[in-house]
Formats: sequence, C-alpha cells, structure tokens
Amino acid sequence: MQTTDYNWEEFKNLSMPEKVVCFSRGDSTPFHTLFSQQFNRTNLDHLCSLATQIRTIAKTRNGMNFLRGLLPHKRAMLYFTQPSSRTFLSFLSACQIIGLNVGEVRDTAISSEYKGETREDSIRTFSSYFDIIIMRSRQKGLAEHMAWTLSNSERPIPIINAGSGQDQHPTQALLDIYTLKRSFERRGGLRDKTVMFVGDLARGRTVRSLSDLLLNYNNIRLVFIAPEPMQISEDVCNSLSSHGVDWIASSDMHKYLPEVDAIYMTRIQDEWDVVKGESAKIDTSRFKIGLDEMRICKPDAILMHPLPRRDEIAKEVDHDPRAMYWRQMRNGMWIRAALIASTFDCAERVNEFYRENI
Amino acid sequence: MQTTDYNWEEFKNLSMPEKVVCFSRGDSTPFHTLFSQQFNRTNLDHLCSLATQIRTIAKTRNGMNFLRGLLPHKRAMLYFTQPSSRTFLSFLSACQIIGLNVGEVRDTAISSEYKGETREDSIRTFSSYFDIIIMRSRQKGLAEHMAWTLSNSERPIPIINAGSGQDQHPTQALLDIYTLKRSFERRGGLRDKTVMFVGDLARGRTVRSLSDLLLNYNNIRLVFIAPEPMQISEDVCNSLSSHGVDWIASSDMHKYLPEVDAIYMTRIQDEWDVVKGESAKIDTSRFKIGLDEMRICKPDAILMHPLPRRDEIAKEVDHDPRAMYWRQMRNGMWIRAALIASTFDCAERVNEFYRENI
Amino acid sequence: MQTTDYNWEEFKNLSMPEKVVCFSRGDSTPFHTLFSQQFNRTNLDHLCSLATQIRTIAKTRNGMNFLRGLLPHKRAMLYFTQPSSRTFLSFLSACQIIGLNVGEVRDTAISSEYKGETREDSIRTFSSYFDIIIMRSRQKGLAEHMAWTLSNSERPIPIINAGSGQDQHPTQALLDIYTLKRSFERRGGLRDKTVMFVGDLARGRTVRSLSDLLLNYNNIRLVFIAPEPMQISEDVCNSLSSHGVDWIASSDMHKYLPEVDAIYMTRIQDEWDVVKGESAKIDTSRFKIGLDEMRICKPDAILMHPLPRRDEIAKEVDHDPRAMYWRQMRNGMWIRAALIASTFDCAERVNEFYRENI
Repeated sequence: MQTTDYNWEEFKNLSMPEKVVCFSRGDSTPFHTLFSQQFNRTNLDHLCSLATQIRTIAKTRNGMNFLRGLLPHKRAMLYFTQPSSRTFLSFLSACQIIGLNVGEVRDTAISSEYKGETREDSIRTFSSYFDIIIMRSRQKGLAEHMAWTLSNSERPIPIINAGSGQDQHPTQALLDIYTLKRSFERRGGLRDKTVMFVGDLARGRTVRSLSDLLLNYNNIRLVFIAPEPMQISEDVCNSLSSHGVDWIASSDMHKYLPEVDAIYMTRIQDEWDVVKGESAKIDTSRFKIGLDEMRICKPDAILMHPLPRRDEIAKEVDHDPRAMYWRQMRNGMWIRAALIASTFDCAERVNEFYRENI
Repeated sequence: MQTTDYNWEEFKNLSMPEKVVCFSRGDSTPFHTLFSQQFNRTNLDHLCSLATQIRTIAKTRNGMNFLRGLLPHKRAMLYFTQPSSRTFLSFLSACQIIGLNVGEVRDTAISSEYKGETREDSIRTFSSYFDIIIMRSRQKGLAEHMAWTLSNSERPIPIINAGSGQDQHPTQALLDIYTLKRSFERRGGLRDKTVMFVGDLARGRTVRSLSDLLLNYNNIRLVFIAPEPMQISEDVCNSLSSHGVDWIASSDMHKYLPEVDAIYMTRIQDEWDVVKGESAKIDTSRFKIGLDEMRICKPDAILMHPLPRRDEIAKEVDHDPRAMYWRQMRNGMWIRAALIASTFDCAERVNEFYRENI
Repeated sequence: MQTTDYNWEEFKNLSMPEKVVCFSRGDSTPFHTLFSQQFNRTNLDHLCSLATQIRTIAKTRNGMNFLRGLLPHKRAMLYFTQPSSRTFLSFLSACQIIGLNVGEVRDTAISSEYKGETREDSIRTFSSYFDIIIMRSRQKGLAEHMAWTLSNSERPIPIINAGSGQDQHPTQALLDIYTLKRSFERRGGLRDKTVMFVGDLARGRTVRSLSDLLLNYNNIRLVFIAPEPMQISEDVCNSLSSHGVDWIASSDMHKYLPEVDAIYMTRIQDEWDVVKGESAKIDTSRFKIGLDEMRICKPDAILMHPLPRRDEIAKEVDHDPRAMYWRQMRNGMWIRAALIASTFDCAERVNEFYRENI
C-alpha cells in the first residue's frame, strides 16, 4: 500500500492505520512524520535511545564536531506559518547540531502566496531547493496533504509536522515521552505510572497526542483534571477504555495530587476561542500549581509543562528539583535532532561513534 | 573605461555596451551581474557548463562536502526589499551549497532606513560586513546605482541583481537559457529552435531578458502570443529585427502550438497594474495550457514557466514529461551557484574536482 | 560577591562597581557584557589586541578557515526586539567569522509573548537552546535583568548587551575605543589626545559610554559641542571632573575644530522625542561637517560617526582619508568577534595561531 495508489480524495478518507503504513518505510519507521499514531514501542525506544546518545556526544567539543559532520550535505526548510518561536528555535537548533543548513519561511506575507500560488506549488518549490520540510500551520491536516503531494511528485522529500491546527503535534508528544522515560529511568520506566493532565484538556493537542503514545506502555493510569467545559473529549476516553487503560476525569486536582507520578500542566488555549473571551469566564483558579501544591506531591513526582506558561505554575516552583519543564524543553531539541538524524539514516553512525568514544 | 571614470549622472546616461564594459572584468565576465546584456555566448557556455559540473558533483555526499568547502571564507548579504520567497530561497540554497554563510535583510521596516539613512549608506554598511550583495528591489535601476556606488568606494564588492523593478532579472534569464540548453542537448542545442512566449508579455521582465539572450544563438525563431494589450513591446521587436531574428506576434496560440520547440508560459503581472483591476478585464482564457493543448504539441517540445503560476498551466499537465517548470526552478539554484562560484573565481577548482572524481 | 547572593530587588539597587564584580569572572573580564563600566585598561587592551589578531588572520583563506573552526560547537541567539540592521548584521558577521551558528528573534509579534509568556521565560527558553544570547531592546535595564535571571537559573549562559534603551551600548563604546587606538597607534596611543563630540549629546548613549571608557587613558581632553538643549548631561560632566578629566562644553564647533585629534559626530536621536517634532525645532545647522570644515581640521585628525548618519557629514567628505566612519563600522565586527571569542576563552588559541602563522 503506497501513497501513490490513491488520489487525494481517496487518500484522506483512509483509516489512520492505513495512512500510517503509507507514510512509513519498510521498517515501519516514519518517512513523513505526521501523526503521533506513527510511533510504536519499537520506534519510540529507538528514537529515545538515539536522542540520549546525541545528547551525551554533544557534551564534548569533539563530539559536537562529529555531530556537525553528520548531515552537512542536507538542507532543511522551516516553513512556519503559525507563529511559534519555541518550536521553531527547537527545530533550528536540532538542525544546526547535526549540521544541516536551514532556510525559513515564517511569514506568508513575504511568500509567493500573494501572487496567487497554491500551497501545493509552494511546497513543491521548497522541495526543489531543500531536502526536508519541517512545517507548522494553523490549518488542520495541511501537513498530511503536503506529504501526500510530495510523495506523488518527482521529488518526494520527507515532511515533519511541527504542529498542524488543533490536531496533531507529534514531536511534542515525542519529547514528552522522552522526558517521562528519562525521569523514570531508575524507577522501572513508564510502566505502572500514574500521569495527571491538568488544564485546557479539550483543546490542547499535546494532551491528545501524548495520551495516544502512552497506550504503548503497560499499566499506565491517567487522571484528567479540568474545569467541566475544558475536560478531555469523549473520543480520547473511549479510545483509552477500548485499550484497557484505567482513567479518571475529575475537577478536583488536590484530591489526586498526592498519588500521581507525573503532573502535566497545560495553559488555557484561548487563541482557539470561538467566541472571544469565552475562556476568561471559566474559573481556573483551582488548576494551578504553587509551592503549597508541590508540598503534597510525591517526593519523586515530576512536574511537566509544554510551555509557554502563564500562571498555571508559579515561578517559585522553578527551583524545585521535581520541576522538569525546562529540561523537557531541552529534551525537545535532542529528540528532534534524533528524529531528523533517523529520517536521514544516521542512527548507525551515531551509534558507532557513541560506542567508540563514550 | 572604468566605473570610477564617471560620476553617477554621467554614468547612468552611458550606453548599455559601455556600461557592460564598466561592470565587467578583463575577461569580459561580469564583476557585478546587473543586466542580461552582460552575457554573451562565451560566458553563457562557461556558466552553463559550470552549473552542470556543480549539479553532477552534488549528487554524492563526498561531492557535497567538496562544494561546501569552496567558499566558507566568504559571506553573502541577501538584500530583498521586494518580496520573493522563490528567488530568495534559490539564492540562499545556491550560497549554502557552495559554503557561503548568509545574512539577510528582507524587510526595510526593520532596517536603518527609518532613521533617515540613504540607500547608498545602507549598501556601504552591508559591504562592510559581507563579501557579496545579492539584491532585489521594486525600484528600476537600483541595483545598477548600488553597483556604481560600491565600485566607487574603498570596498568594491560584487553585486548580483536578483530583480530590479520591471526591468532586469538577469539570473532568471540565465536559468531559462540553462534549461533550454539542457533540454536540447541531444537535439543540436538551441540553434534552429522555435520558442513561443505566452501571456503577459508587455510587463514580464523575464520575457524581455530571455529574448535578449536568445540573440546569442543561430537561427532562433520567436512566437509572441498574447492578448492585444499585453503583447510584447515594440522596442523588443525592433531589436530582434535589427539582429535578423525571425519573429511573429499573434493572439492565436493554438495555431502555432504544433510547430514550436519550447513554450514559455507567463502569468498576468497584475501587481504592476496602474489602474487596479485593469488586467482582470482582459480575456486571457485562450492563453492557457491544459491536457488538450499538450496533445497538439510536438512530442519533444518542452513547457516552461518562471513560476509562480496561477491557472496558465493546469495541474494535470505536471506529470507530462514535457513539463519542465519544476526542473527549470531547480536549474535556477544550480546556475546561481555557478554564477557566485564564478564571481569568486572558483571555476577552475570545480573543474579539477570534476575531472578527477566524476 | 555573586549574582546568586541577591534577589532581583536587592540586586538592582547595588552600586555599579558591585554589579561589575557580580557579572565578571575571576580575572575581572566580563562574563555577561552589560555595561561599559565593565571595561578597564587591562581588558580593553586585551580585547583590542585580540581583535587585531583576528582581523589580520582573516586576511587569508587559510586564516578564515582557522577562525571558522574556533566555535563551531557553540550557537548564538540574536534577540533583537529593537530594530537595528547595523548592529544585528555586525554581530551576525562576528559570529559567522568565528564559526558560531546563529538563531534569531527580531520581531516579538512572532514570538511566544502573545501567548502571555513573561520575558524571563522567553530568555530561559533561548538559554535552553543556545550557548550565548546577544540582545537589544528599547527597555532600559532589560539586559541586566535577563543576565541576573540566567545567572540564577540552572543554565547560566552569557548575555551580551547590544543596546538597551537610551542607557547602555557597551560594544559600541568598545568599537569606538578600538578605532581610536588603531588610528593613534603610531602617534603614542590615546593619551594626550583631544576628542570632540558633536550633535545630540543629551540622548546619544554612545557618547555617554565612550566618555566612560576614555577615563581609562591619561590626559584626555574632551570637547562637547551641541545646541543648548542637546548638550551633554551634568552627571557625565561631574563624573569627568571627579576623575580629573579636562572638558569643555560649547556650541561653537568651528572654534575648536582646528585643535582636536578626533571628531565624533552623532545624529539627532528624534526617535526618543517626548513631544513629536521637538528636535526639528532646534537649529542644528552649525553642527555639520562638510569639505569646508575638513579644511580647518588637523591633517591627522580623524572623523568618526557611529552611523547611520543623516546630513551631519556631507557625502563629499567620504573620500577624505581622515574619514574613519566606514572603517569604524568594520572595526565593530572585529571587536565583537574578539569579545565573543574571549567570552568562550578562545584568546589563547587565536594568539597561538597568530604567532605561528602571521
């Protein structure tokens, strides 16, 4: 089953598992990285271990020079029409660390679109000049459509989805998994852990993607804490239940805080408000973490946040060793470097350097 | 005859051949690349062959590493005050391929101009930091003025004109010639070919520049197809006639389609409309290429377009092997890399690597 | 005494000498470069000599390759929320010359700030991805606050202040000192020289910073020439007097022109006008340099300007060998490269290459 077997109208109605096959290579690792559903236990383990090797190698000057020599012959296009300095800089850094040169289009106003060019033609233009496209867009499904377009062209270069609409943000889910794995490394890994999500669960795509990936681990328990109108959507719950995952939805954060292993805070996504100001009317005061809340958490619990934050986590918490969000962000850079390296088949070379030098 | 022999008022009234001499080096290759008139059969052949060598070398990782080592000690300023992601990315890629670091100014709003600095001072600033300036501007003749300014300064670095006003876009003409040469390589080259131009011929600077360069080849025949108000301007026709070139102007595309070797489509340049919407009133429906039109073309004809396109060429045509526009765009990257390499005297080193390794 | 000894409210009220200690390393060179007061005769001499070595090494291709190999394992964030193409490009070039990769945020509109993130969190984000932050801002004291923030975080990377508000622009002062030192190299150095400042002395931060640094040299005499409302502020004069420096404030430029060794012109900083148009009402016609003024200057005087200029210096003066402003600008690139190299402890390696190859 291949992308080229379908026209777009047929393709977009395929089931997710069918799409995953289409966008993957023979060994089931992603060619285009578009959905969190493309990750399974095998390629997650592979990517996390590659990220750790890269991170370790990068600690020395000699190692950094090795990494910069990995892909100097490749160039990446960062096509970010939805503003995001964080994800942008994370991918930029990832590219620079493993030696790719980068071009960027961040503002569609300076692009050719004003001349009446279609998005398909823009993408084909980028694919003429670059070897990989990393794209972020407000438009749901755009990355998928562009991946299909390229796979049906004469120059089918890979696409990485750096966030499309409210839907998919697979590399955010990757970095979350990587952070959980690193944090629980000496505590038996992710299995048997309880993860609490707090905040705007209805609209945060990171929560949705991460929930999906957690299905790959045994005996995970999920606690969804949100004010009623922002609670996790039913389809996520159904999916969890159908996979036998134990979950709870509640609006009482303090009740569950003492028993969880990881707390995943999120901010109110009011940029997606349908009616302007509707989020502001919801009382979110009981969904914040300060020093008092940290006091009732387990001593080895970890506190995560995809950032940027507003006041969901008080600044004073930053110095608590359980606060993991800054490290989580840096993990994003490493796991993205690993993903790009893996896309260009560099894993073996990294592995070899690691074995011989570390 | 040298740039420094004249003040600007004198210089700008020189004849084109005199300017060409001023902006060239001893061997008559351009120092500053400003006009398509600077290209003759000798330097066109040289650049096209250099582009092909670079393109071939770039196919291997080892070759890419060689190319990246060509000019790591040089840095380029991309000064693009007229929006153009396509030309910008093409030059950026060209620079990266042969190892130049790049700085960019794409938005005059964030430049010093708001502080009352003249353009001459801005250019001298860029020339203080960089080794070559690649510039694009809405203002006719600006690149020429800036080249004159630098040649009369203490740091006379080269300028490449990446499009100035409706007037000159010499590297577009270069890539068109390169595409024609590659396409007709096994059919005796450009000589004796018929090239058809279709669309907004009055305002498309690419048509004008390419017509100029075609004068360098023997027995070329040109067919200009446009609605009356967009037909090619008289001065181009006169120039062709005076050089003994056979040309036809018509509004009947379908009549001539079966006999031409190359079709060069262009889009309506309505961003230059004097009265807003004036272009939209002209019936352009008979100046489009679809599957029906391709059916009546020669089996070895080629279809070109400088891109971006609107609906002048139907998407369905993209998969026709005669559709050359995506390759044409990629050719632009190679010929620009060749031009920059040639400007910095790297041709011999490329040549040597090519002879020894390919 | 360390940054971490204080919370921000305490820290910001420390005296300047106390802050200088906090932001420096053991050898009293800056860790964060924030104030011109951090420079003393020792580290100025060190930086200027490093800049000259880098500049000399850069003259050959082999030397440029050595320089590019200095810091390929480091990456710099250019965070420029106050527009400035000049300082931006100067730092960009400095980074590229010594091999750093660069990321940039120039427009806060595309940053995370619209999502409600604090500046402190933004800076910590950048520090997660990069190894040094070079920042420019309209907000007085911001760079200092950010340096304090980073020094109190888990990833205390260095900050270089590329201009904050009307207050500090230490690298501009550095490049001015470097230009003066180079110019007077064969005339016994800066000691015993008379430096004239002309223009908007009340608001130009460069004048203030340079005056501070000149305190490090013996027997300097300063002449401040400005229309009354733009004259140098009293605190600068008091500081000079208390250090025993001879100074004059006057509005008669022509009287003093024949006796000065350096003329430092500045432009009217009307972007800081409190009432729009207030600067335009002041007669500044007698504070400009043209060919007539150059005629009455010493034959070995030098003419400087931080640029951009308006009409304070006539274009005709550019070809006078005493006009030093273009070279001054290029000096900025070299001294910034030296500062970054020094921040990352590369001075010894540069020195070694210089001794062995030049």
